[in-house]
Amino acid sequence: MSKILIRAMILPMTGADTFFPQGEICIEDDLIVSVGEKGSSPEGFVPDRILELPNDVVMPGLINTHTHAAMTLLRGYADDLPLMPWLNEKVWPFEDKLTDEDIYWGTLLALCEMIRSGTTTMLDMYASMDKVAEAVLQAGTRAVLSRGLIGNGPNGENALQENIELVRQYHGTGNGRLSIMFGPHAPYTCSAEYLKKVKAEADRLNVGIHIHVAETQDEVNILKEQYGKTPVQWLDELGLFGGHVVAAHCVHLTQQDIEILHRQNVCVAHNAESNMKLSSGTAPITELRSQGVVVGLGTDGASSNNNLDLFGEMRSASFQQKLKVNPTALPAYEVLEMATVGGAQTLGFENVGVLAPGFKADLITIDMDQAHFYPRFSIPAHLVYSAHAGDVRTVMVDGKLLMEERKLLTLDLSKICQEAEMRAKRIELELNVK
Amino acid sequence: MSKILIRAMILPMTGADTFFPQGEICIEDDLIVSVGEKGSSPEGFVPDRILELPNDVVMPGLINTHTHAAMTLLRGYADDLPLMPWLNEKVWPFEDKLTDEDIYWGTLLALCEMIRSGTTTMLDMYASMDKVAEAVLQAGTRAVLSRGLIGNGPNGENALQENIELVRQYHGTGNGRLSIMFGPHAPYTCSAEYLKKVKAEADRLNVGIHIHVAETQDEVNILKEQYGKTPVQWLDELGLFGGHVVAAHCVHLTQQDIEILHRQNVCVAHNAESNMKLSSGTAPITELRSQGVVVGLGTDGASSNNNLDLFGEMRSASFQQKLKVNPTALPAYEVLEMATVGGAQTLGFENVGVLAPGFKADLITIDMDQAHFYPRFSIPAHLVYSAHAGDVRTVMVDGKLLMEERKLLTLDLSKICQEAEMRAKRIELELNVK
Repeated sequence: MSKILIRAMILPMTGADTFFPQGEICIEDDLIVSVGEKGSSPEGFVPDRILELPNDVVMPGLINTHTHAAMTLLRGYADDLPLMPWLNEKVWPFEDKLTDEDIYWGTLLALCEMIRSGTTTMLDMYASMDKVAEAVLQAGTRAVLSRGLIGNGPNGENALQENIELVRQYHGTGNGRLSIMFGPHAPYTCSAEYLKKVKAEADRLNVGIHIHVAETQDEVNILKEQYGKTPVQWLDELGLFGGHVVAAHCVHLTQQDIEILHRQNVCVAHNAESNMKLSSGTAPITELRSQGVVVGLGTDGASSNNNLDLFGEMRSASFQQKLKVNPTALPAYEVLEMATVGGAQTLGFENVGVLAPGFKADLITIDMDQAHFYPRFSIPAHLVYSAHAGDVRTVMVDGKLLMEERKLLTLDLSKICQEAEMRAKRIELELNVK
Repeated sequence: MSKILIRAMILPMTGADTFFPQGEICIEDDLIVSVGEKGSSPEGFVPDRILELPNDVVMPGLINTHTHAAMTLLRGYADDLPLMPWLNEKVWPFEDKLTDEDIYWGTLLALCEMIRSGTTTMLDMYASMDKVAEAVLQAGTRAVLSRGLIGNGPNGENALQENIELVRQYHGTGNGRLSIMFGPHAPYTCSAEYLKKVKAEADRLNVGIHIHVAETQDEVNILKEQYGKTPVQWLDELGLFGGHVVAAHCVHLTQQDIEILHRQNVCVAHNAESNMKLSSGTAPITELRSQGVVVGLGTDGASSNNNLDLFGEMRSASFQQKLKVNPTALPAYEVLEMATVGGAQTLGFENVGVLAPGFKADLITIDMDQAHFYPRFSIPAHLVYSAHAGDVRTVMVDGKLLMEERKLLTLDLSKICQEAEMRAKRIELELNVK
């Protein structure tokens, strides 16, 4: 049994008014035992380890609700291009060359970056997901994994079987750190029949569905032409909603779409930076939230971002909404909610996303003793508008320390960077030779 | 005489194809002597000091072309508010309480943050500018200072005299690190007569003018109502242009405005994050650049950003243009140009902004041995789309090291943070008591 006490400022994300300037948080094994002001530790709690971090803020670990982790291998490979040449000439040919082992190392690279930037949980969609599961178990983070399913492609059936096998093999493993969803790619890459089959399997296995929805205006146009409906209307009519569904992007929505998402309890994974970099548009996050839709934040893959830094994403999400709506849109504390408790709700966790007794000890500490955090008028504003990834000092997931003083404890950063470099350059060479 | 040799990757910003993966840069006193591949150092150059940084990229120091440095004291004091209540109820009452010494310490706080995030030069506009000059001379950075002149206010004449005195006392001091411009605030806060007087003084003293232009649609409406012209047309007609002018913001421009700015060689200071956070709009940077207008990047003050990090600003500038235009807008290398050589041109420097023989040794090094910089497909893309402020390892201005291994060498960070905290909280208390 491990008992850890952290003394620091605490922002538990249990309400905008709750902040402990000289706080104490007690952790026993994987769970939080108590959170409060100095002296609030339970009687008889004798820690094995005390972290004295009076200049740090402790907050829940950040939750990345939409990514393609192994796409770190494409970071900087293709930027500033129009969408279709970017995909057709660069991204897809590169991805065709990825081996299982490449995806393993690319995911490890992503996990290094995530831990170093305070992300403790991700929802991933990619291929070779058993390798991704292995990487996550090794890193010690929390993750929800989904096999990307291009139903219209030649591999649709095989991929579905892989996703089913993934549920069987990994759902609930790693002391519950790993869980599985189905990952049908999008309504324009999966037929109605295929989507119904996926939904039936998800219901049978009692797991959720992770799907791209209404990311671009082109997608909406395709669906309208093909089915005479918006992507959301089409998926609703097909019966894909109703269970636990995470809809990534949702940039182009009608008022009726928003009502459907709300009625069906669909959660939205918002990817502000990817939507800007790819010129997809500004998602109606302010309207979605005001109508009660749960929204989490995602980075999308490193080819369209190009980092996996949720601090940057929080800032961009707020700025993008303010630009579109007005300066009061998405205030700092609400953005923090989206990145923590909103992310946990999006991913279906009931015991992650806030710091409270009985919750999983997934937390990060941020070094506030820096020029860009003075004066200390507002911790939430500083975390959203001033912080950057490098400010994270400590990361804990499931009660286990994954980073201390910015040193990764479960992963060999240098080895992983070298492997990623070698593998990415090998693929570039293969593509150039061909 | 000091001689320094840096061995590192070098991105000199002298052209998109110029990069030295194993480079050498020789510095003698304040000037760059040579830049090139390994072995390129001039014969007979015997350095006193060698910096071996094989995993760092050396590039020109970043240039912040529009800020109000001492507004760091308001960081986090007022966010997420509508523009007028933000100004009337929060910013202006707070600023009314600032003493000369407060501005000195607030500027020092800004300079700490700037150095730590790789900014070597700023164009500042504020009050108590002699105190700002003192802070800059102490920090060792390069700066162009302008006294903010609210011509329509009761203090217009005094402020103009202060600006004149500032030129007399500081223009060209600190081995040329300090220069002075006039800072008429904006066309809607200065009368025609006042602006003409400022222009005459600027011409007489042979210094430039730094002014806010067309930041909000409201400003355009005011000018149109008052004078029947856009802000740019009005300033052109008044004769304010023609010399060296830096127009900050320029969010709301007509095609004719852009033509005037180009014809008159007006340089634009673009503040993407402030324009988003305050919901001002998206400046037509792509059009301005395509029509040959010189554009630099700025952070604006820390009350509307809330940090002074130009890495974040580069990223946001590109993303905001891509969102508005298309994914090819403002590609990575062009953004780097805006933050370096474009900034130098904006501020009127002929020997700053690129790494080349005869140029001032204003440079930074970025630690590329990090997860978010692998694989190393594109250094420019990594610097713009993946980097954050904390990645800067070394900062040199005028040949003098201001930061090594992230440790500030000219400023007492801890003391400055404490002073800033104390002074900001004193003002908050004064305002609450009243």
